[in-house]
Amino acid sequence: MPVILPPTKAPTLTELLDDIAESRALVSSVLAGTKHSPDARIRGIGPLRSASADELSFVVSNKFKDELAITDACAVILPPGMQAIAPAYAQIVCDQPYLLYALIARWFDVKRQPTIQPGCHASAVIDETANVDPTAVIGPHVVIGAHTTVGAHVHILAGCVVGSNCEIGANSILYPNVTLYDNTRMGARCILHAGVVLGADGFGFAPNPMLAKGAWGKIAQLGGVRIGDDVEIGANTTIDRGALEDTVIGNGVKLDNQIMVGHNCQIGDHTAMAACVGVAGSTKIGKRCIIGGAAMFSGHISITDDVQISGGTAITSSIETPGRYTGVMPSGPHAQWQRNAAVLGKLSDLRKRVRQLERNPDEIE
Amino acid sequence: MPVILPPTKAPTLTELLDDIAESRALVSSVLAGTKHSPDARIRGIGPLRSASADELSFVVSNKFKDELAITDACAVILPPGMQAIAPAYAQIVCDQPYLLYALIARWFDVKRQPTIQPGCHASAVIDETANVDPTAVIGPHVVIGAHTTVGAHVHILAGCVVGSNCEIGANSILYPNVTLYDNTRMGARCILHAGVVLGADGFGFAPNPMLAKGAWGKIAQLGGVRIGDDVEIGANTTIDRGALEDTVIGNGVKLDNQIMVGHNCQIGDHTAMAACVGVAGSTKIGKRCIIGGAAMFSGHISITDDVQISGGTAITSSIETPGRYTGVMPSGPHAQWQRNAAVLGKLSDLRKRVRQLERNPDEIE
Amino acid sequence: MPVILPPTKAPTLTELLDDIAESRALVSSVLAGTKHSPDARIRGIGPLRSASADELSFVVSNKFKDELAITDACAVILPPGMQAIAPAYAQIVCDQPYLLYALIARWFDVKRQPTIQPGCHASAVIDETANVDPTAVIGPHVVIGAHTTVGAHVHILAGCVVGSNCEIGANSILYPNVTLYDNTRMGARCILHAGVVLGADGFGFAPNPMLAKGAWGKIAQLGGVRIGDDVEIGANTTIDRGALEDTVIGNGVKLDNQIMVGHNCQIGDHTAMAACVGVAGSTKIGKRCIIGGAAMFSGHISITDDVQISGGTAITSSIETPGRYTGVMPSGPHAQWQRNAAVLGKLSDLRKRVRQLERNPDEIE
Repeated sequence: MPVILPPTKAPTLTELLDDIAESRALVSSVLAGTKHSPDARIRGIGPLRSASADELSFVVSNKFKDELAITDACAVILPPGMQAIAPAYAQIVCDQPYLLYALIARWFDVKRQPTIQPGCHASAVIDETANVDPTAVIGPHVVIGAHTTVGAHVHILAGCVVGSNCEIGANSILYPNVTLYDNTRMGARCILHAGVVLGADGFGFAPNPMLAKGAWGKIAQLGGVRIGDDVEIGANTTIDRGALEDTVIGNGVKLDNQIMVGHNCQIGDHTAMAACVGVAGSTKIGKRCIIGGAAMFSGHISITDDVQISGGTAITSSIETPGRYTGVMPSGPHAQWQRNAAVLGKLSDLRKRVRQLERNPDEIE
Repeated sequence: MPVILPPTKAPTLTELLDDIAESRALVSSVLAGTKHSPDARIRGIGPLRSASADELSFVVSNKFKDELAITDACAVILPPGMQAIAPAYAQIVCDQPYLLYALIARWFDVKRQPTIQPGCHASAVIDETANVDPTAVIGPHVVIGAHTTVGAHVHILAGCVVGSNCEIGANSILYPNVTLYDNTRMGARCILHAGVVLGADGFGFAPNPMLAKGAWGKIAQLGGVRIGDDVEIGANTTIDRGALEDTVIGNGVKLDNQIMVGHNCQIGDHTAMAACVGVAGSTKIGKRCIIGGAAMFSGHISITDDVQISGGTAITSSIETPGRYTGVMPSGPHAQWQRNAAVLGKLSDLRKRVRQLERNPDEIE
Repeated sequence: MPVILPPTKAPTLTELLDDIAESRALVSSVLAGTKHSPDARIRGIGPLRSASADELSFVVSNKFKDELAITDACAVILPPGMQAIAPAYAQIVCDQPYLLYALIARWFDVKRQPTIQPGCHASAVIDETANVDPTAVIGPHVVIGAHTTVGAHVHILAGCVVGSNCEIGANSILYPNVTLYDNTRMGARCILHAGVVLGADGFGFAPNPMLAKGAWGKIAQLGGVRIGDDVEIGANTTIDRGALEDTVIGNGVKLDNQIMVGHNCQIGDHTAMAACVGVAGSTKIGKRCIIGGAAMFSGHISITDDVQISGGTAITSSIETPGRYTGVMPSGPHAQWQRNAAVLGKLSDLRKRVRQLERNPDEIE
């Protein structure tokens, strides 16, 4: 059920671009098509292959040229060099078509939101020492602990539990059933998706043979979690509190769903991680890194700025040079893998045999 | 604490089979044992090795023949060629013993359920425009948004938060603390386990250098999530909403716990995935696929019908031929792995050396 | 925001050690420093490199000798051979410095906790047949089902949903938004972090072609979950109920976040698992095992006691000998990996070529 505005609320292309301030810098020209002019009303956004005649679409590269030829969209955002001669659709020529699409999608998303009245739902349980801005929206069954501060225009949706001594910066959104432990702080404009847990105890234990053979004694986790501005955290992602100091997530970091960040980690500004990534304790990841899904980091290592890690890669030692790093076991038909795996388990033997051949080929029988 | 019915409520074997309609097609014969007749009362189900004399058990293949010889169960479901001569237990001969066991387990599960009265708990917060069938059960602290439809005999258990414009088909169950974002639709007889999150924003960002070097601009996710009939989704699994169109899960799909399905994915009918699988955005998986635990799929690829993926395998490109695919790093004692890993990191060198040997063996050394 | 006590509440070093019973056995001597005596007040704990002059720190090995030389801490726990001559800080000489640090951290953690009054929050929904100890703390919006027993001094925090016929042992803590299905039992002093789900249905299905081609029939999961004493379970970890018997977690087991334990598994006493581990159904793991993050276990295998598994390793068959096991694909610069991966996919060919060279080197070329 994608967003489709009723015709009466749909803007013309001209109105839409006028309403998005950034479009003035991004759009170099708007060309009428044979069937659709810039006065066409835009009811939604669709992919080239399935957009209807009242939807806008976009294309980022020549890779999708074929779909451009057959689209029904009434307007298409495209990069310079890709304009067609007299197509049916209006053409919005733009150096960064993906960014303009993002801005337009945001416009449609905001327009469809129902206006929620500020205030606290009657069923919310808010400690009397908490400081909740009057413009904030606190949903049903929310719990907010002592001495916690909730900024202007924050939305805390149903079922969230926010501990004591927390800070939630202005314009942040907590989707339902998020849990913040005590002493969790986050900046402005953060988005926390459902099921996120910030500030659970880090995994710290000391062997305690006084209890029992092999027993573990818990190490209290005395630090907290500190999140910058403009951070988005995906559903069911968990970030543990520090053992002594805070676990720190920089500004503009984007974390997908089901990510695990261990205690004492530091993630640099604008780093993005796809889903299911795990970062073990005390590891430091630099700025502007891009981490593929299900990548895993050992603890106590350091990754410099501007590193890309391929999905599924295990990083077990520090990385000091920017660039892309990979380590994924290739897959293939099962029987083929079985043959290769058998050799894999004896790889050092194989190298010995090659060495032997190199040394003295004539002695081999 | 497995299910054990009190003797007064326990059925005889004959009564039990009579009560399960499918048993007429499945069971070819029921043979009395030397100690137990088909009139024995069945209080529960147990594995062969530990079943007590008032429990039924089952065996699917010769692999468990030894356990069959020593079981105390009063009745055993077994496939045709496995009948014993005069065993203590009654024998239920059946072409598909595992399926008959499943049907009997379901019988015991249903019988033990307390009867919950339909209706909405007083603490639930239900929007006045929501349409909740009078036969539905809405638990404590549940929240249901505007214009959402809840079908007949649906159970929404404590702490669930259901957004606006959702549809929940008849006889579906939402276990506690499930979150559905706006515009999530599911068919009939679905089971969502605790902590499931459907419809969180897909992970979509466009580089936005206008904000800061390396900064990401959020792409609003305008699609929804659409789930078929008879889908089961395990605890803490997350399925993101589509960017422009819906993320789609087919009929009869079975997802285990802690699975992540990215935005715009499509999963075909009757596909089953074990726990911890990740499917990156826009990937399409066919019908009747079986995906092992912790397998990972790259984004924007397509897997045909009837594919099996081994656990722990990373699939990085499309698969067009049915069959089994694998790619798992073999494990072994640490020292042995270290030796092999050292060679692994120089594998292309090793091949060069072999090539060199093949070309001109006499020149070596 | 680490824990820092106000000066008036901060103990002297002597008072602190006196208050921790185990310190008498652990500490061999306390030496005054040139600037700080054992009468110095300790307001918190910090790492050597950043501890302030009113914080205590610790060092476990010579690896951190350099940081010891420059620390501002007023007191340092250190192992016997590491005492300095006349340092500024007081020295607490101790055979097991990490364990003493753990005990002191616990002291600081307990001291900072606000005293919560026992009793049930007015918004909690507690079945009249549940048996809640009067010393227990039941938070807002908690739900507790029929015939469930909650022991002395248990804390069940906001938003938790506890099913019917559960048992929660004395002094256990359930952090917010935990879900326990019916028939879940746990011992004393357990800690369940936010979002934990215990007792969801195991992933059990039987092919049921009577429904549709490729369709799966659900197998009711009739067992429960049984957790020992002193078990800690990390945020969003899930442990499924058994199919026929219980899934069993031994005493003193420590599970990190986002772990998945399948139905019918058994985990032995004092085994510890780092985050993101997956254990497929019916697998048995022994006592005192240490499992690295993101390791994965196939189903129906058995791991003996005292096994260590490296992070990211897939274990696909039983292990009968204690020791460390590893299987991780090494990572490196992407181009290098590509070259190696190309060979990996043809490894059995490479072995054939080596074999050929060994057999008859002169015939090559």
